[in-house]
Amino acid sequence: MLTVEAALEHVAREIQPLAVEVVTIADALGRVLAEDIASDIDSPPHDKSVVDGYAVRAADLVSRPITLTVLEEVVAGAAPTQPVTPGTATRIMTGAPVPDGADAIAMVEQTQTLAGEPQRVVIDSPPLAAGRNILRRGVSMRQGDIALRAGRTVRHVEIGLLAEVGRTSVRVARQPRVAVFSTGNELVPPDNLPAIGQIRNSNGPMLLAAVRRAGGLPIDLGIGLDDRDELRRLMAEGLSSDVLLMSGGVSAGVLDLVPDLLRELGVREVFHKVRIKPGKPVWFGVREVSGHRTLVFGLPGNPASSLVGFELFVGPAIRAFSGAPFSPPSTETARLTAAFEHRGERATYYPARLTRSPDGQLAEPLAWQGSADLRTLSLADGLIHFPAGERLYAAGDVVAVSRFAQ
Amino acid sequence: MLTVEAALEHVAREIQPLAVEVVTIADALGRVLAEDIASDIDSPPHDKSVVDGYAVRAADLVSRPITLTVLEEVVAGAAPTQPVTPGTATRIMTGAPVPDGADAIAMVEQTQTLAGEPQRVVIDSPPLAAGRNILRRGVSMRQGDIALRAGRTVRHVEIGLLAEVGRTSVRVARQPRVAVFSTGNELVPPDNLPAIGQIRNSNGPMLLAAVRRAGGLPIDLGIGLDDRDELRRLMAEGLSSDVLLMSGGVSAGVLDLVPDLLRELGVREVFHKVRIKPGKPVWFGVREVSGHRTLVFGLPGNPASSLVGFELFVGPAIRAFSGAPFSPPSTETARLTAAFEHRGERATYYPARLTRSPDGQLAEPLAWQGSADLRTLSLADGLIHFPAGERLYAAGDVVAVSRFAQ
Repeated sequence: MLTVEAALEHVAREIQPLAVEVVTIADALGRVLAEDIASDIDSPPHDKSVVDGYAVRAADLVSRPITLTVLEEVVAGAAPTQPVTPGTATRIMTGAPVPDGADAIAMVEQTQTLAGEPQRVVIDSPPLAAGRNILRRGVSMRQGDIALRAGRTVRHVEIGLLAEVGRTSVRVARQPRVAVFSTGNELVPPDNLPAIGQIRNSNGPMLLAAVRRAGGLPIDLGIGLDDRDELRRLMAEGLSSDVLLMSGGVSAGVLDLVPDLLRELGVREVFHKVRIKPGKPVWFGVREVSGHRTLVFGLPGNPASSLVGFELFVGPAIRAFSGAPFSPPSTETARLTAAFEHRGERATYYPARLTRSPDGQLAEPLAWQGSADLRTLSLADGLIHFPAGERLYAAGDVVAVSRFAQ
Repeated sequence: MLTVEAALEHVAREIQPLAVEVVTIADALGRVLAEDIASDIDSPPHDKSVVDGYAVRAADLVSRPITLTVLEEVVAGAAPTQPVTPGTATRIMTGAPVPDGADAIAMVEQTQTLAGEPQRVVIDSPPLAAGRNILRRGVSMRQGDIALRAGRTVRHVEIGLLAEVGRTSVRVARQPRVAVFSTGNELVPPDNLPAIGQIRNSNGPMLLAAVRRAGGLPIDLGIGLDDRDELRRLMAEGLSSDVLLMSGGVSAGVLDLVPDLLRELGVREVFHKVRIKPGKPVWFGVREVSGHRTLVFGLPGNPASSLVGFELFVGPAIRAFSGAPFSPPSTETARLTAAFEHRGERATYYPARLTRSPDGQLAEPLAWQGSADLRTLSLADGLIHFPAGERLYAAGDVVAVSRFAQ
């Protein structure tokens, strides 16, 4: 049986970048750039004052105080009209362009104007070095510089930077369409009251939300009963998406038709079963028909097994399809708050509450009733990753943890 | 001047919960529950098998192997029709209800069927304790139990749990409407080429995106020139929202009309200026007119000052308005990768790249050209929080950091 690392390599190998689309910068939030973004301007676009005050020639401040003639006032958004010459100064606001001739800005707090003499200013400042309180044109970015590289995820700061360099729209990787259905005769929709032997379909809504958070476009195909024709119809529909995500029907029971039907539909099996707990029977395959590639994931039907399979394999695949480099779920470290006995040849993913403490992060393993126990899972901030093998962990031991998306 | 902690207390005091609305569970993703959610079922709803195998009476497995008569097969979604009596067993699939009379499940791997004798099964298993491989009805949740409390943020797991307990819609706090505009005669929209003295409005798009990520509904009011009438019109429009967020116009320059106009419009000033760097001139006030309360934030015009003000005050306010408890930006710890000299009486928020290492998180202070340098800011994962006061930090020193939303 594959290790999780080997399984992740298999998934990574099957990712192919999707087409590119153009969106407004507002809609680019959370998307991945598919082009390098060059600046069309210098930034700042001119030498500018970083304070309110007076643009002066530093050489004029030979003694303190000194009185200078005020030429004009330059506010942000305006341009100076006269050069500063010896004995003169220009009143200047934060962000405004520095006039020619001036090489420093005296802060307004170190100046005084004289009643009835608006053309004069008394500057009582220690000597200023040339360049003081001036931000030079182009120090942050030159025209033609690449401001942002393809592959960058767009956050609020990147949207600000895109606006600064004149972009109102941008090329990003298309979001993958992810079709989701749950299989099993025992399933009823959430608005039905389950009869004996039945349970509500909780995986469907949970996985659709997880797809959205991972950056995919969820497509809800509902519930597929354990019936060859119905399952084949749903699978065929789902295979027109970029990812087909099913839960249930991949363990070894008599009604587990899923892997068989997928093969019939031309899906090449890449792996079935991974050495993880919960979630061992996870199925992964690929179909490629006339240039359209679909990744197919079959997750076990138990909610937690399904969730672990999503977090480990499906989420990373969706993010990579969305243009980011493929990467396994990111982990942090935390100290266990309680002892934990790990057994068995499968890596275990165990729900935990994660809290920050002055000594770093703590992970509290939750009292969990097993993989159908969504209620306890909902108290978890993420999963502890216990590697395969027997080990008695003590309270305080450091473990790897991954967080659920908020 | 206020400390950041005192300023945060002022903001927290002005938060009042918004009205509640009903949304589908799919639309509840990221929202905050405004009701306790009781379960309408036991979970699991019946004693159920956690493996594929045979439901048996544990007392029957007195020797190994032992042959039992197979009564029937119960698949998931079906109900048993006969009790298991001494000498009999029922074939059972994972998730299916356990028949009366049976008190353990023998795993299918430890059984054999005999060719031509479908009514018999040979079980070669060590003795089974009563309850083995059975998940008891109601262990995770009893009918009437509160599955989720009001105040919980809805993630994928909560959506699964809501579906499990029969909810297709749910009451959540309304999202605050947040009107945003930037002020300054120097500003032009991003699709204009700035003339001398002008810069593009990067704060507007950046803050609108930040509002979305914090859970608010952004309303774009564009650019307000430094003109009393125009600013008054935009402010009046913005005051009909739950939050009015402005950038620019709050420092001490001659055209800084914002605080004056806000007072004229009946906004009560709560604070102006906080001991932070960048972002000192941040302005906060509240207007309450015929029961409608609007929080008003004036952020400095420099992009980084504006961003720091958002991260420290506006984001927490939006999240609290959205139903979550008020909390300052959450911090983690990290070790500096380089020395850093901190000066001055203001707490500093400094852009840094954050990376995980086996020894914990590292924070690399970026070579930053000051608060207009969005390009360097875009390389940052978050901000280092340096407390006020002189201190020479050495590489390896532990500092607090906050992460930007992805």
